[in-house]
Amino acid sequence: MKNRYCIIMAGGIGSRFWPMSRSAHPKQFIDMLGTGKTLLQQTYERFQKICPKGNIYIVTNESYKELVIKQIPELALDNILGEPVRRNTAPCIAYATYKIRKKNPDANIIVAPSDHLITKEDAFAEAVNIALNFTDNHDCLLSLGIRPSRPDTGYGYIQFIANKNSDEQICKVKAFTEKPDIELAKFFLQSEEFLWNSGIFIWNMKSIDEAFKKYMPELHIIFSEGSSHYFTDTETEFIKEAYAQSTNISIDYGVMEKANNVYVIAADIGWTDLGTWGSQYEHSLKDDNGNAIVGNNVMIYDSHDNVVNVPKNKLVVLQGLDDYIVVESDNILLICRKHDEQQIRQFVSDVKKNKGDKFI
Amino acid sequence: MKNRYCIIMAGGIGSRFWPMSRSAHPKQFIDMLGTGKTLLQQTYERFQKICPKGNIYIVTNESYKELVIKQIPELALDNILGEPVRRNTAPCIAYATYKIRKKNPDANIIVAPSDHLITKEDAFAEAVNIALNFTDNHDCLLSLGIRPSRPDTGYGYIQFIANKNSDEQICKVKAFTEKPDIELAKFFLQSEEFLWNSGIFIWNMKSIDEAFKKYMPELHIIFSEGSSHYFTDTETEFIKEAYAQSTNISIDYGVMEKANNVYVIAADIGWTDLGTWGSQYEHSLKDDNGNAIVGNNVMIYDSHDNVVNVPKNKLVVLQGLDDYIVVESDNILLICRKHDEQQIRQFVSDVKKNKGDKFI
Repeated sequence: MKNRYCIIMAGGIGSRFWPMSRSAHPKQFIDMLGTGKTLLQQTYERFQKICPKGNIYIVTNESYKELVIKQIPELALDNILGEPVRRNTAPCIAYATYKIRKKNPDANIIVAPSDHLITKEDAFAEAVNIALNFTDNHDCLLSLGIRPSRPDTGYGYIQFIANKNSDEQICKVKAFTEKPDIELAKFFLQSEEFLWNSGIFIWNMKSIDEAFKKYMPELHIIFSEGSSHYFTDTETEFIKEAYAQSTNISIDYGVMEKANNVYVIAADIGWTDLGTWGSQYEHSLKDDNGNAIVGNNVMIYDSHDNVVNVPKNKLVVLQGLDDYIVVESDNILLICRKHDEQQIRQFVSDVKKNKGDKFI
Repeated sequence: MKNRYCIIMAGGIGSRFWPMSRSAHPKQFIDMLGTGKTLLQQTYERFQKICPKGNIYIVTNESYKELVIKQIPELALDNILGEPVRRNTAPCIAYATYKIRKKNPDANIIVAPSDHLITKEDAFAEAVNIALNFTDNHDCLLSLGIRPSRPDTGYGYIQFIANKNSDEQICKVKAFTEKPDIELAKFFLQSEEFLWNSGIFIWNMKSIDEAFKKYMPELHIIFSEGSSHYFTDTETEFIKEAYAQSTNISIDYGVMEKANNVYVIAADIGWTDLGTWGSQYEHSLKDDNGNAIVGNNVMIYDSHDNVVNVPKNKLVVLQGLDDYIVVESDNILLICRKHDEQQIRQFVSDVKKNKGDKFI
């Protein structure tokens, strides 16, 4: 147990959740479902059952450090890693990995995003325990895969090689496929050889170190050479320089798709990446008319199947709306058809162009 | 000219314009059309061309006196009449009439609501001049009538007796009809014998005094006996008592429908009572997609024929909405189908019941 470590990645912007998720206050720091806890707080609590509290590290943008401190006051400052710029997941994971290595070269690590929803906490803990026990004595890079329930075109897929004559949960990975078109997604669903890529990874220090060395040698050199700076006053300065030299690349593209010791564990954990209002809607409590409402003063007339998320103190009267997203946050109001929500990124881009950064 | 007086009635609540119009700040005090001037300010300016500034009196609720002073700072305090309670138009007009009588028993008076829109200001001035010249030497109660352009079921109608062999604009009134059903309204429109009742009245002091004496003798006694108090320190105290004794009744019902010397002048003045969002929509500038927008930061996608009225600094992104009312005011948001706007009164009533007075 003492060798178990967790890296929570909390540096994203979440622009598909605009205007609720803003660059100054992204969705991981928001109580998106009105449960009383932010997604980051939920994620942090989830991992307290997996590893010692002091072994949980959160990587976030420098500008969000204060938010992390505020939301998880018990976390040691050494465990909050600030990124000076956004460089996708590979540098983020490399930074945390080599910082942890200084403390414990025998670490057995789980890496996870901070903004996903997992409703079956027990099943999650069970799957992660199996995974960590496996990586504890196997040289492999293990993904956590979700059995698909629909032909979703927004997720990445992992094709696995079934273990013949075995009900072993952990299988060798054959291929990764990013967001397929709908026909391909339907085929994936039907074939039962594909899982959704949850973005959660499990591996031991030796395996991920070897993988960085082999597939991203520059990144390996940059962050492993920082060992003398980690947990010292010069860490921030060193990291600024290190990120300036790092390329913007995901761990999937940089490592997972290239390595040949990649495995996946299939899990049924009530997972969603809460990437869109639509996926939030699916996982929210609804009233008798199918409206998923966050807000204390929302009055609904003749309206069905809407996502409503407004400030607690705001009075909102809705009449005659079906299948809409109605979101207000920090003096921005968005009303948009639910099935057109992919346009939100365009709205954000237009807002930035026409109105400047203050609304982004 | 010096005998000409104007009474502007500015005590209404405008609940059909909720949440823009609030009991603490009704629509007459709002720049409903985004022109830069409130409806009251527009009304006041309109009458400056009709009579001397000092002869304009504004009757409003006590609680709105500060709003009147703020919006029309040049108005003498003596010319702002505060009503302690709402008692409809008859007591309001009686109070102003007998107060003016103390100053000028030869007054020739026009009475008008403060919250109507009149787009043809010159035609209005011309009609009012004809009307005031007529009442200056005729004992009559003159209504200003609007030739109907559609079978509106929300207005009162005035049936007139056409002047045979004459193109005289002023005709004797045969009957008043309050809000007809749609079939009747269509008949009225077709018959060309009916005008909309604008709620604007013109008469001389002697005629209205006689009418009050005859048809509302109690009201006559109450307010004519106050003569010693008007323009003195005891006026407020007296009026409080006077209103406590007055019944809640409109001038139409209390006087106009009973008198037999009622006339109407037909005018084409670009009039609307702006009683509803729909009527505001009709009179607003629209974008190429038929959206009438008040607000500086409203971005519209794939949306048509909406009424949008939001605070200047608010960023609003609308997508996929047709024929809706989207109004935000003072932390209240209303989204409602345009053709269901008659339900707004019900919303206000429900809000009052469920959330209390603070949102009304």
